[in-house]
Amino acid sequence: MLRYLTSGESHGKCMLTIVDGMPAGLNVDKSIIDDELAKRMLGYGRGKRMKIESDRIEVLSGVRNGKTIGSPISLLVKNIDHSIDSLPKVYEPRPGHADLSGALKYNLNDIRDVLERASARETVSRVAIGALCRILLAQFGVKIISHVVAIGGVVSKTKGLSLDKISAISAKSPVTCADMKASADMRREIDKAARSGDTLGGVFEVIIHGVPQGLGSYSQWDRRIDANLARAIMSIHAIKGVSFGIGFESAALKGSLAHDEIFYGKSKGFYRKTNNAGGVEGGMTNGEDIVIRSAMKPISTLRKPLSTVDIRTKKRVKAAVERSDICAVPAAAVIGEAVSAIEIANAMLDKFGGDSLTEMRRNYEGYMSQVKRF
Amino acid sequence: MLRYLTSGESHGKCMLTIVDGMPAGLNVDKSIIDDELAKRMLGYGRGKRMKIESDRIEVLSGVRNGKTIGSPISLLVKNIDHSIDSLPKVYEPRPGHADLSGALKYNLNDIRDVLERASARETVSRVAIGALCRILLAQFGVKIISHVVAIGGVVSKTKGLSLDKISAISAKSPVTCADMKASADMRREIDKAARSGDTLGGVFEVIIHGVPQGLGSYSQWDRRIDANLARAIMSIHAIKGVSFGIGFESAALKGSLAHDEIFYGKSKGFYRKTNNAGGVEGGMTNGEDIVIRSAMKPISTLRKPLSTVDIRTKKRVKAAVERSDICAVPAAAVIGEAVSAIEIANAMLDKFGGDSLTEMRRNYEGYMSQVKRF
Amino acid sequence: MLRYLTSGESHGKCMLTIVDGMPAGLNVDKSIIDDELAKRMLGYGRGKRMKIESDRIEVLSGVRNGKTIGSPISLLVKNIDHSIDSLPKVYEPRPGHADLSGALKYNLNDIRDVLERASARETVSRVAIGALCRILLAQFGVKIISHVVAIGGVVSKTKGLSLDKISAISAKSPVTCADMKASADMRREIDKAARSGDTLGGVFEVIIHGVPQGLGSYSQWDRRIDANLARAIMSIHAIKGVSFGIGFESAALKGSLAHDEIFYGKSKGFYRKTNNAGGVEGGMTNGEDIVIRSAMKPISTLRKPLSTVDIRTKKRVKAAVERSDICAVPAAAVIGEAVSAIEIANAMLDKFGGDSLTEMRRNYEGYMSQVKRF
Amino acid sequence: MLRYLTSGESHGKCMLTIVDGMPAGLNVDKSIIDDELAKRMLGYGRGKRMKIESDRIEVLSGVRNGKTIGSPISLLVKNIDHSIDSLPKVYEPRPGHADLSGALKYNLNDIRDVLERASARETVSRVAIGALCRILLAQFGVKIISHVVAIGGVVSKTKGLSLDKISAISAKSPVTCADMKASADMRREIDKAARSGDTLGGVFEVIIHGVPQGLGSYSQWDRRIDANLARAIMSIHAIKGVSFGIGFESAALKGSLAHDEIFYGKSKGFYRKTNNAGGVEGGMTNGEDIVIRSAMKPISTLRKPLSTVDIRTKKRVKAAVERSDICAVPAAAVIGEAVSAIEIANAMLDKFGGDSLTEMRRNYEGYMSQVKRF
Repeated sequence: MLRYLTSGESHGKCMLTIVDGMPAGLNVDKSIIDDELAKRMLGYGRGKRMKIESDRIEVLSGVRNGKTIGSPISLLVKNIDHSIDSLPKVYEPRPGHADLSGALKYNLNDIRDVLERASARETVSRVAIGALCRILLAQFGVKIISHVVAIGGVVSKTKGLSLDKISAISAKSPVTCADMKASADMRREIDKAARSGDTLGGVFEVIIHGVPQGLGSYSQWDRRIDANLARAIMSIHAIKGVSFGIGFESAALKGSLAHDEIFYGKSKGFYRKTNNAGGVEGGMTNGEDIVIRSAMKPISTLRKPLSTVDIRTKKRVKAAVERSDICAVPAAAVIGEAVSAIEIANAMLDKFGGDSLTEMRRNYEGYMSQVKRF
Repeated sequence: MLRYLTSGESHGKCMLTIVDGMPAGLNVDKSIIDDELAKRMLGYGRGKRMKIESDRIEVLSGVRNGKTIGSPISLLVKNIDHSIDSLPKVYEPRPGHADLSGALKYNLNDIRDVLERASARETVSRVAIGALCRILLAQFGVKIISHVVAIGGVVSKTKGLSLDKISAISAKSPVTCADMKASADMRREIDKAARSGDTLGGVFEVIIHGVPQGLGSYSQWDRRIDANLARAIMSIHAIKGVSFGIGFESAALKGSLAHDEIFYGKSKGFYRKTNNAGGVEGGMTNGEDIVIRSAMKPISTLRKPLSTVDIRTKKRVKAAVERSDICAVPAAAVIGEAVSAIEIANAMLDKFGGDSLTEMRRNYEGYMSQVKRF
Repeated sequence: MLRYLTSGESHGKCMLTIVDGMPAGLNVDKSIIDDELAKRMLGYGRGKRMKIESDRIEVLSGVRNGKTIGSPISLLVKNIDHSIDSLPKVYEPRPGHADLSGALKYNLNDIRDVLERASARETVSRVAIGALCRILLAQFGVKIISHVVAIGGVVSKTKGLSLDKISAISAKSPVTCADMKASADMRREIDKAARSGDTLGGVFEVIIHGVPQGLGSYSQWDRRIDANLARAIMSIHAIKGVSFGIGFESAALKGSLAHDEIFYGKSKGFYRKTNNAGGVEGGMTNGEDIVIRSAMKPISTLRKPLSTVDIRTKKRVKAAVERSDICAVPAAAVIGEAVSAIEIANAMLDKFGGDSLTEMRRNYEGYMSQVKRF
Repeated sequence: MLRYLTSGESHGKCMLTIVDGMPAGLNVDKSIIDDELAKRMLGYGRGKRMKIESDRIEVLSGVRNGKTIGSPISLLVKNIDHSIDSLPKVYEPRPGHADLSGALKYNLNDIRDVLERASARETVSRVAIGALCRILLAQFGVKIISHVVAIGGVVSKTKGLSLDKISAISAKSPVTCADMKASADMRREIDKAARSGDTLGGVFEVIIHGVPQGLGSYSQWDRRIDANLARAIMSIHAIKGVSFGIGFESAALKGSLAHDEIFYGKSKGFYRKTNNAGGVEGGMTNGEDIVIRSAMKPISTLRKPLSTVDIRTKKRVKAAVERSDICAVPAAAVIGEAVSAIEIANAMLDKFGGDSLTEMRRNYEGYMSQVKRF
């Protein structure tokens, strides 16, 4: 079982994480983690902070001479701006943020004490762990990609595109959208929002390819893989909706059209020709690509701030303005990949056990050939 | 902290659950639990099983002379049909179900061994625990309702309706829809699907009223209340999407229109005039109604079955036909209420502690007046 | 991972448990569970309750046609005396029991509400789960025995006896002591205590044979197998001390005499000629027998009761007298075996994964041959 | 609920920990943590490493301007010697250590990969968290002390000494023993062991004063406070036994002499005149001092090494010699205090909830006066 805790404030010394449960013997190429951290900072519409920080991972434990040794892994990313103690107090809670509820909950009268941890900078830690899990998953042929499907009302058309095509096209888009026409429109929307001091949200899709059948379980509610993936995705800042496969559309379909018929081929084993279910049935993976769509609300910090109430005077004021982005959907997609990687890695470890990569692989291969012979 | 495990197969002896962590001194009116169990069986479009079973709770432990005493509570519902050992073997996995992945995962060659536990009858246990949590929450003025928002493409119009109105109207609808016109159309769609041997899905909404500010936390990803609610909802059978407030719509809005401005009133304290966020900001409750929408795919067991593969011969065959429903969205809404009640109760216990109701209430009231004086 | 919850009060309807995580395909012979439940009731010095109850397991879920199917297993033992609602109120907390602290904690003014769950009858559930785990462990050659080492100051001499000898001799002793001379003396002590209205404690030893090397881990404190075994043992009623191998004696030895030198043999692999460590080094099993000693205080309910305070009047009174035993060390030893079985089964599942017995065994064998070739 | 993970290798960059769940508003005086870290390095009989390292805490997150803010707290202690990557390989597993089982488990052929994490240096992290918990507990009048009771066969006499006396005397002893005569003898034993290249173990006692009644619970086995304290203690390196109150002695006593009669006083409420139970009854605190005794085996690394087997050649060789101590019982006592502090803090948070110190204190006081009025 993987367990992890993250820590760190937006303008504290660093963003940190400790992960326990990684098998020994895994080569950890730090540049893969750094690449994911870099991707997290990209995307058209990001604010100034992204230009200040240039996140690089430091591995503080758990890796010796480039390999995991079974002990907990610590990943640290320094904050270049770590002025937390001296930053000005904040009294004007921003609508859409943790500011007000956090101040009430923790009984804090400087909202700075809330927003520093509630900030999406926390996801640096999760992207780092996700990248580590990705390195593990790659050993088993699991591949995770994402692309932006909508920004500010502009929706991409990607039906029928292969995984490789989606990867290739979105890699060239400044908003990681796999439809170049939509990509250009999205960019324009971001420019418009920027000019009017406004912000935008959107929708992204995470696709997980190469997952074995039977991860997760219907045996107990909290072992369902879709439930756990949904929790992970919904825990990302500003996410307001999550769905699998055709998701909310499936609610309007007839059963005869909604489900994916089962086929069998000598080399492929059991498979499907459609994937409306998004790779999950009965709380378990069915071997098809896991497809998750997530809705992100627009960034809560506006340059042209909304109305709020001063927590001292209770008078109407404008909300606080923190350094922020106009649109962060491409970044959220990267984070979505990361948290998905963590959940899948955990489900793999739960099913296959294994204290070393050798052991985990042996167990995995035993299962794969059992499935093949089934 | 509340912990619980459920057990039981669809045609086993009973559906069972053990819950640990309920405070002592709570009056448990069994009829409230039975009422929720009855609601779970209702709804236009249910199959024959619903007429066979007539679920009644038996409290096996944790309650003495009608009151909780701090020990774990066991809730049992007998299955009238408990022929599990002698039921015929199943070899034709149903698309959309746990059948195939379950057989591969657990290495079972009679799909009956899978479908018995993977069945939605498991939710009997969760509705029972949910009802218990509801009894606890009622002590703190928390009220949970639900209504069906869409079935088979028919969508209700309920904008502007008060909570009480939604409750009152949906109570009279055979599909618990708060729009009588849509309700009639939904019924017609169900009849049509029934005639063609097909099934339907839909969308339901759960509304949680009266929750204090500051449940959940941004401190660690897995403490976010929306993440945990999403997990609970997504763990319900056939749910493929979940969203908070305006959900996927928020992805298309500008920030200036998406967020709920903050107001202050002498008696009300901090409050909002809009509720796009659906009661959750920064992974915490903000005191407004929590509004959750969930998409349910159509029932996977069709009277006119889909194509599949016999797991013995690998030949193309028709999927197995189990006793089933045409549409179960109203039931899913009841289950949605139940799992939400569990999560909210757990968040309350996490924040307020309390081994007795007296203690929990004292702690709650202390906090409420702290918030008031903030 | 195995998870379980137990429930039930001493004079409630039943003792219950739900276990999640057992692999599918395991034959469950109910008579093995009943045998362990029977052993739990034996032992010279038991009270009248033991003659009233005759515990038999009912499997309510998780087993179909005698085999596990991967779903949670429910085990129920009925209480013949289930008069909990009408039993007289208790106001005189017994020293040594949960009575007083429980009443204060849960704010209960009838101590009956405390003692019903705090009763050692709860261990019925744990013996049942333990027996189930034993059935699993037997598949991997793991065998667990126990024997009573001391009662009321009489100490057995068993140094040098083989596991089989200890089993054989203690099986014939009315106090499951592997030294017949000591056994007779213990019996005499029990008779003496009975005559004077007093009670006795003692020491028992649990021995776990056939465990693979490398269960548990030093990686994180809560994964150490000795820590988890100690928790399980200390959670048994009336246990006040727990130790591994030579335990407290090791504190007085020099390092050169305390540790078990390492040897290697072609067929045996790495092994030891001594076992001072009791089979655990660095929080992991080392392949030698795990040897755990536990100290049990004398039963807290005395026929000639101690002084206490009436919780209503605060006046000095004699403690309540519940039906009870004079000495229950042999029973505690059986419970010690059971909770150890659970911890070892859990550690095996953690290391080897496996949703089916076939898969778990394949993974286990892969590891065993890896260790052999190391 | 407090959760924490520790990480770090003995010669890695640092020892690290992340703790989640500390209430906001607590003043964190770093010098208190540094003092505990310093105490952990003291004690007559420590090796060279102790002279190299001079542990000082760095708070990386969770504290702003000296106060906790509700976010996770990260504590880092740098290792001055962090040569892990270049240290020589080790092939000769030390008896008594994790070396062999760890290498087999994680499939590592350089034992260095095992011993770096299995090292007792890991306890730096736990002493740091423990010190933090201590700061929290001090707010509620809870005080934790420890003293060494035996080293290498020399046993202290402290019967009848008050808590303050034990503190005062042991503070002056180089082996933190509260009996000056025994202290001198212990020192002599250590000198003797040093001369012969040998090592020593011993026994220490942790005393927790000022704990409210009713922490922990009998409701579920894993909520018993003694079980959780035993787990925490047993998870300390080299601990082989743990007991509460008179522990193993209680096994030889009659019930009439073993239990602590209950008294009542106007100002004191319910109390005891004896404390054989060591402050725990029925898995809960009873308000008396919690008294825990722990047996530590002698250090496993001997200057005059034991026999073992080379893991490559399988030939008999002398065990590896790592820089180590002759006797570390005084340090273990400090660690015992720390892990006890964590468990008690956790039980307090479980019972009283509270996101801020203000809230936790209000809830605590409410309960204390409820208990008083009971």
